Amino acid sequence: MTRVAILGATGYTALETILLLLRHPHVKITALTTRSDENLHVSQVHPQLTGRLDLHLENLTPEQIGERADCVFCCLPHKASAERIPALLAQGCRVIDLSADYRLDSPEVFEKWYGVAHPDPERLGKVPYGLPELFREQIRGAQLVANPGCYPQTAICALAPLLAKKMIRPNGIIVDSKSGASGAGKSLKPHLLYCELNEGFSAYGVGVHRHQPEIEQVLGKVAGEPVDLIFTPHLVPMERGILSTAYSCPTREFTQEEVMAALREYWANEPFVRVVDHLPNTRECRFTNYVNVTARIVKDRIVTVSCIDNITKGASGSAVQNFNILYGYPEDTALI
Amino acid sequence: MTRVAILGATGYTALETILLLLRHPHVKITALTTRSDENLHVSQVHPQLTGRLDLHLENLTPEQIGERADCVFCCLPHKASAERIPALLAQGCRVIDLSADYRLDSPEVFEKWYGVAHPDPERLGKVPYGLPELFREQIRGAQLVANPGCYPQTAICALAPLLAKKMIRPNGIIVDSKSGASGAGKSLKPHLLYCELNEGFSAYGVGVHRHQPEIEQVLGKVAGEPVDLIFTPHLVPMERGILSTAYSCPTREFTQEEVMAALREYWANEPFVRVVDHLPNTRECRFTNYVNVTARIVKDRIVTVSCIDNITKGASGSAVQNFNILYGYPEDTALI
Amino acid sequence: MTRVAILGATGYTALETILLLLRHPHVKITALTTRSDENLHVSQVHPQLTGRLDLHLENLTPEQIGERADCVFCCLPHKASAERIPALLAQGCRVIDLSADYRLDSPEVFEKWYGVAHPDPERLGKVPYGLPELFREQIRGAQLVANPGCYPQTAICALAPLLAKKMIRPNGIIVDSKSGASGAGKSLKPHLLYCELNEGFSAYGVGVHRHQPEIEQVLGKVAGEPVDLIFTPHLVPMERGILSTAYSCPTREFTQEEVMAALREYWANEPFVRVVDHLPNTRECRFTNYVNVTARIVKDRIVTVSCIDNITKGASGSAVQNFNILYGYPEDTALI
Amino acid sequence: MTRVAILGATGYTALETILLLLRHPHVKITALTTRSDENLHVSQVHPQLTGRLDLHLENLTPEQIGERADCVFCCLPHKASAERIPALLAQGCRVIDLSADYRLDSPEVFEKWYGVAHPDPERLGKVPYGLPELFREQIRGAQLVANPGCYPQTAICALAPLLAKKMIRPNGIIVDSKSGASGAGKSLKPHLLYCELNEGFSAYGVGVHRHQPEIEQVLGKVAGEPVDLIFTPHLVPMERGILSTAYSCPTREFTQEEVMAALREYWANEPFVRVVDHLPNTRECRFTNYVNVTARIVKDRIVTVSCIDNITKGASGSAVQNFNILYGYPEDTALI
Repeated sequence: MTRVAILGATGYTALETILLLLRHPHVKITALTTRSDENLHVSQVHPQLTGRLDLHLENLTPEQIGERADCVFCCLPHKASAERIPALLAQGCRVIDLSADYRLDSPEVFEKWYGVAHPDPERLGKVPYGLPELFREQIRGAQLVANPGCYPQTAICALAPLLAKKMIRPNGIIVDSKSGASGAGKSLKPHLLYCELNEGFSAYGVGVHRHQPEIEQVLGKVAGEPVDLIFTPHLVPMERGILSTAYSCPTREFTQEEVMAALREYWANEPFVRVVDHLPNTRECRFTNYVNVTARIVKDRIVTVSCIDNITKGASGSAVQNFNILYGYPEDTALI
Repeated sequence: MTRVAILGATGYTALETILLLLRHPHVKITALTTRSDENLHVSQVHPQLTGRLDLHLENLTPEQIGERADCVFCCLPHKASAERIPALLAQGCRVIDLSADYRLDSPEVFEKWYGVAHPDPERLGKVPYGLPELFREQIRGAQLVANPGCYPQTAICALAPLLAKKMIRPNGIIVDSKSGASGAGKSLKPHLLYCELNEGFSAYGVGVHRHQPEIEQVLGKVAGEPVDLIFTPHLVPMERGILSTAYSCPTREFTQEEVMAALREYWANEPFVRVVDHLPNTRECRFTNYVNVTARIVKDRIVTVSCIDNITKGASGSAVQNFNILYGYPEDTALI
Repeated sequence: MTRVAILGATGYTALETILLLLRHPHVKITALTTRSDENLHVSQVHPQLTGRLDLHLENLTPEQIGERADCVFCCLPHKASAERIPALLAQGCRVIDLSADYRLDSPEVFEKWYGVAHPDPERLGKVPYGLPELFREQIRGAQLVANPGCYPQTAICALAPLLAKKMIRPNGIIVDSKSGASGAGKSLKPHLLYCELNEGFSAYGVGVHRHQPEIEQVLGKVAGEPVDLIFTPHLVPMERGILSTAYSCPTREFTQEEVMAALREYWANEPFVRVVDHLPNTRECRFTNYVNVTARIVKDRIVTVSCIDNITKGASGSAVQNFNILYGYPEDTALI
Repeated sequence: MTRVAILGATGYTALETILLLLRHPHVKITALTTRSDENLHVSQVHPQLTGRLDLHLENLTPEQIGERADCVFCCLPHKASAERIPALLAQGCRVIDLSADYRLDSPEVFEKWYGVAHPDPERLGKVPYGLPELFREQIRGAQLVANPGCYPQTAICALAPLLAKKMIRPNGIIVDSKSGASGAGKSLKPHLLYCELNEGFSAYGVGVHRHQPEIEQVLGKVAGEPVDLIFTPHLVPMERGILSTAYSCPTREFTQEEVMAALREYWANEPFVRVVDHLPNTRECRFTNYVNVTARIVKDRIVTVSCIDNITKGASGSAVQNFNILYGYPEDTALI
């Protein structure tokens, strides 16, 4: 039985992590922390959990967390995560960080895109990127895992095979992504109100979204050379799901069959990547840990379409998958 | 007072046309036709119209329509439109065709994309494309107007200024579009069921959607040279609205200010095109005849974002706008 | 041309009022006030209005408002309305108050349900309740009109005919109502976030909602005796629309035909009340000023079902209807 | 390991049953039948199941089913179920029938409400009603279980405690229920289209819905006397969830605390019934097997509010719960 603490337990990814872990036969959730709603019972914050988890939210020190938990799922915002994680590691905890803090290798790139100095810059570049589909071996022995971003997972799962096999050029790639509203979290912002978001569709963060350098960094490692792309996120009037449509330039002429075969071959052993012939709908992955990927040849481009549930595979599902790898449980435990 | 008939009165664009025309001070709706629900009162098909329009759906001959109406809004599917319109023109009616039948100039292109021989091929190439923002003068004197497609309007309003001013290259353009479900009409298809479409997002018709040649043809006229683009439509879990994100290559380096100024200058006199600084949301155009357009420079591309209500500006609103031009009414009558 | 000011112009009912009045041929909007977003252009708050209304939000004194406007639509919250309206009346303005402040006749009842002392108690009981369907003559000569609540309109339009005709008992009535989220306004409350409200349905305010005494008061006047009912509101995951299902006890046995005939007879001359045979859907009234009503006999009860658009007929549409009555314009001006 | 067949595998309750059983450590799904989509792979009908279940839909005889499966979940429509179940029972299968066919005790009542003669009338009255919360012991030894209706479960869980304890009168009860659209199944009906159902709310089946006699029958058994109620269903623009607001007359004056205590006491040992203090939202039960119940005293009535996920607890979750009881597995297996 592994004892688990969840930091920042009021948000959507924390709730999803709890729901998944409640199904895990080898996990006991022992602590939930918060910085703001101290002493509330978790069912007051997440009424879905009524009768399912009898814990209060607490404002705990790293020492207290270290006494209670073997593994910590950190659901704090960026910067807040990296301010607390070093002390947790010092306590001997393993940490799966769902924030963006340890995803980028360079403190300078972090500061440029996140607008703050990184609180723990020395560790950057040494933390495995928690996408088991690419970095399973590094994850296996890690004490800290940087759980990947939601958008990046869709782009990476579609483009990594084609870059690894040198089938597409590493530049001029366009990733046009669409996400449900849960990706924005539970914050009280006017544009997240039902009556503002419902029945509307918009682009946001055009050219300035923080997931762009994350995608470029990971795909650059896969390609073995710098990858340059344009990333445009959009907000869809739905709760869960991300779909990314990516446009890339083939290095020579390929048939659609060749592209599909490359995707299938690359992901052949991955239990959570499904290469499908049809154009996938985010619904097919909703509340699951699956990534669906397909590709089409259109004129002189390869168009890939890939989708996930942004809260499950995009955050908490990957986190549990990483947890299973860290602790040697079957990788799909609690994820089917 | 202009007497108006609406052909194919059971669908969404017909309903919207009726709702707009009920506000028009110079219109009397005198006939509604159908091929299937004959003899039903219009309020049985469209309960919204209860107490607002006292007409039955009828299966009328062109002669009967010609006796009753000066102007016909044809809301029939493609092919069915072009099978009936010649006889209506022979009756002296003016016709605004909301189908795709007279939009493409070439019978061969039509047949390639629509999979059927065109029923009235001689007329192709002589019918004005009913986007007043570009073709107002040709529309003014026409007897038949080809009302433009919904997706094309968003792409055209964003890209026409940049092509006309030779600011972008006419090839390598990517138009990634997203539409609400009303664009698919009222047909009984499983993927249009609430429980299949709700909370899901998907691409469809990748590389094979019929609006691609329509966009290319119209933009080609504006550019004065062939335009080549990739068009990818997506289905958004909402009712109304289309947003298109287009990626094009500038012919030289431009600042964002220059691109925005070009958009503003080009559309300066158009009452229904709003060039906006912010990233627009389809909600802002919902139930209106407006097109919202903006642009950003991202790396080496110009990214434009444009949106409309696919049923209003995208179909019935443009149709009423064309009607106003045809009959000399102020162009925004019934559209504010 | 009537000059109109709108107080509290940032909310949903203000926006809807503006949109309706933009279609009104005899209205010029001359002032928009706010207590918080001073100096913003209205299009920054309501991007839908870009290019349609060139006014800034201002923090104006009653004198300034009186100089600029003949009629004031007051979209302020309760209490704030009654604090400002006396000064506006003193300036000679006519005022249509969309808040609840002048709906109840008794300062004690107001204080009990709204939890604050009424700022202008002497005027209570002298202000006509702005439901033209019942109080048109009192409205006609008024300087101040208390625009009716959204839920009450649905309950009143269904039950008033049956109470007036003594067909149902004035007690033991149950009004089970369901509203879209726009009724809760634009406030930043967690339960109004898209991801909290979407795909969920709940009751709220059971037994304690402020519209209960309002419904009882108005129906009591119609019945000529006290009316006692239970009112239960629910929140529907949609934007607009209220539907009320009411259960009442007939005073003797009636056929369904008799009940329907009574409804039709009572509302025969009302342009905005539609007595329909079918079970109405709020969609049929969406974005309109119509009320749809029907009735069924089930066992020993009369079950009525009635619906409106809560923002149009439920607030701004009725306000414009009242405005038209006050100024002698055709009652449906700007409402079709 | 129990071998399970699912009859009528194309619908929503079949899909949900499959998804739940895929998590069940002691179940192997061995057959999926259909009457219409023979030979399709299940992932073609339910793309969510891609990579998760490798079975084709087949048109199997009872003998073939009997060879392959120990237990049959019958997801066929009413009448079709009772036409096939006797042969399955003869094969020795245990059957959990998700249709309405064996819920009512009387063939006459069945025929009155369902409009067809019952195909297997002798068995009526001998089949346990599959609500474990009331009939666990009868279910335990049964070969056939009549899985309960979705609406009835909400009404029963709220009212059974009060009727059992004689706290409310058995007549004059009003059950005003609201359901998401998945309850209507996957049939191609116009009112189930996204653009017809979205952003609309309506009542349906007022006074004539088939769940009324089912609720009355079950509550009558609990009360030990006939129960008479009015049941009004409504359609909510969401996918999943039912909430019922019920109004009943207390037999004497009770405090709210007494009513809540009665609910808590009655359901104290039920793992899936949660008596909550707050007014519950269907979201809290979404994708779970929980029933949430609360009560309020309003004037002279007890108002109960109860909710479930109509597909999980309302159908497939209860079915799996019954399955666990039949086979001696922990009752919450695969349901957490």
